[in-house]
Amino acid sequence: MQSDTKNRADIDVLGIGNAIVDVVSQAEEALIGELGLERGAMTLIDEARSEELYARMGPGREVSGGSCGNSIAAIAAMGGSTAFIGRVKDDQLGRIFAHDIRAAGVAFASAPAADGPATARCLVFVTPDAQRTMQTYLGACVDLGPEDVDEALVASAEVTYFEGYLYDKPAAKAACRKAAEICHENGRLLALTMSDPFCVDRWRGEFRELVKNEVDILFANEAEIMSLYQVDEFDEALQAVRQDVGFAALTRGPKGSVVVKDQEVHVIDAVPPSRVLDTTGAGDLYAAGFLRGLTAGLDLASCGHLGSAAAAAIIGQYGARSIEPLLPLYEVVASQRR
Amino acid sequence: MQSDTKNRADIDVLGIGNAIVDVVSQAEEALIGELGLERGAMTLIDEARSEELYARMGPGREVSGGSCGNSIAAIAAMGGSTAFIGRVKDDQLGRIFAHDIRAAGVAFASAPAADGPATARCLVFVTPDAQRTMQTYLGACVDLGPEDVDEALVASAEVTYFEGYLYDKPAAKAACRKAAEICHENGRLLALTMSDPFCVDRWRGEFRELVKNEVDILFANEAEIMSLYQVDEFDEALQAVRQDVGFAALTRGPKGSVVVKDQEVHVIDAVPPSRVLDTTGAGDLYAAGFLRGLTAGLDLASCGHLGSAAAAAIIGQYGARSIEPLLPLYEVVASQRR
Repeated sequence: MQSDTKNRADIDVLGIGNAIVDVVSQAEEALIGELGLERGAMTLIDEARSEELYARMGPGREVSGGSCGNSIAAIAAMGGSTAFIGRVKDDQLGRIFAHDIRAAGVAFASAPAADGPATARCLVFVTPDAQRTMQTYLGACVDLGPEDVDEALVASAEVTYFEGYLYDKPAAKAACRKAAEICHENGRLLALTMSDPFCVDRWRGEFRELVKNEVDILFANEAEIMSLYQVDEFDEALQAVRQDVGFAALTRGPKGSVVVKDQEVHVIDAVPPSRVLDTTGAGDLYAAGFLRGLTAGLDLASCGHLGSAAAAAIIGQYGARSIEPLLPLYEVVASQRR
Repeated sequence: MQSDTKNRADIDVLGIGNAIVDVVSQAEEALIGELGLERGAMTLIDEARSEELYARMGPGREVSGGSCGNSIAAIAAMGGSTAFIGRVKDDQLGRIFAHDIRAAGVAFASAPAADGPATARCLVFVTPDAQRTMQTYLGACVDLGPEDVDEALVASAEVTYFEGYLYDKPAAKAACRKAAEICHENGRLLALTMSDPFCVDRWRGEFRELVKNEVDILFANEAEIMSLYQVDEFDEALQAVRQDVGFAALTRGPKGSVVVKDQEVHVIDAVPPSRVLDTTGAGDLYAAGFLRGLTAGLDLASCGHLGSAAAAAIIGQYGARSIEPLLPLYEVVASQRR
């Protein structure tokens, strides 16, 4: 970040994403098969299927989620200034979402809808290997559109960060396009997370065009980036990213991450987690740490380290909103900055 | 490689290294402590200590070794044309070494010494975790000097590859310097492997100067390169290498390798070994695969893949000279070249 840009930005990171409440439950391996779920993926379902699966689910805990929302809440928890755009209904889950994200210190700008579909929920089945299988009813999120994207808000954010999942609905996609335009007109940065390999599969052509022409910073995990370029080796995807995007952070689970920006390439080790309970949110928290570091002016390797530390913290607990304070992670990395 | 250079080179890779016969034995963890050995390292010992340790060692198998010799034998096994310079005595182990390396298809140019110290041996204690602790009596190797470096031979090799271990003896170091000069005068490439982190520790200052000013291709593992630059993070070493050397292949065990050449950076996955019996020679075989690929004109990612495949093959057996044919590894990678 140039410091002149920084001075003009009122907030560090604005998120645009699906406002979702997660319902997290432990699940035996067998249940995944019985229910016919796509293991490890995020699958979109309708309300009826949501009710059916909920009835079969074990005791759950409700926790505000949504990939982008998780990242924004974590950036706030690490001391960054943030805002979030996402649609909820004025119902119980909608109030939970709004409460939680505001309690995390995020400016939640979107007014709840008085009618229309219910607040979105994601049924998360966590298998004994700490993998999550997600079934999402998008509900109120389907109404997110360009009119929700406040021009002044986008213009005031150093980075606008949105999730690929938005591409699953045409109006939300139009919202992304509008945000991209405002970003570019105002010299701000547009960041995208690819969300999941199945999402990449659904929107490969548009994502390729998007990362090539619109996106300033790309976040993707290994499976996503290999799916985007339809290659078998991580290194092939890396070469394509260096050509196409210029600036990206590619996460590889226990193998760490690779950060590229123009001619700079950093190979960052994963931070070994104290335990692995639930990998939900590892990518969201990596992006959070990275963007927190970036908007604080840290060097790219430190941004990657902070991302890794935040990811390690989140997989040691259930759910993707941290129970432990995250600020110390930022303080440690910032104090060691090179 | 420029094809005009390639056409003028008679051999692909010339190795200069210690000519050592390995005596490999399984060892319980406790024995390492009892004998006061530096676990995981290569330690130089004298003849008396060699006899003492040999007496305490379990049943062993003799197999020709030496880091550079292992690489050269493997390059030959993968179809490359090779030669080796190294000193043995005309004794039983010396004849074993010469037989084995010639049987591998390597032109072994050095005449055995009629007198002086015995042929070098390395007592290799393989602990149950597949780690090796090496105790080396250098014997006849100490007499390797500039007079052993045949100018025409170096000038005829596309790459001259030598091991950092040579720096442990002044005459051998002078031999390296001579080889470097001949390489540069003839537009050939000089490649170095750092050998081990303790070796780097012994010669850090000279190695830094060497990699900066003389070496065209550097091979090092993670521990070695972090020791060279005295940094705590792999990424810091990577940045230093990109500044200092330009062209390097850095191995990271199960985390794969990173290949850099000027602005090119490749992050190459390890090939999962079918089993891990003995990690002896993993680095030697990686370098072998890489150099075989490079002198065959493969792209850098393919060179890294071939290195990984060769390393995976060798750690599934005891000792660093492959029992299985290695040529198919080259043929597979070469047929898939991009």
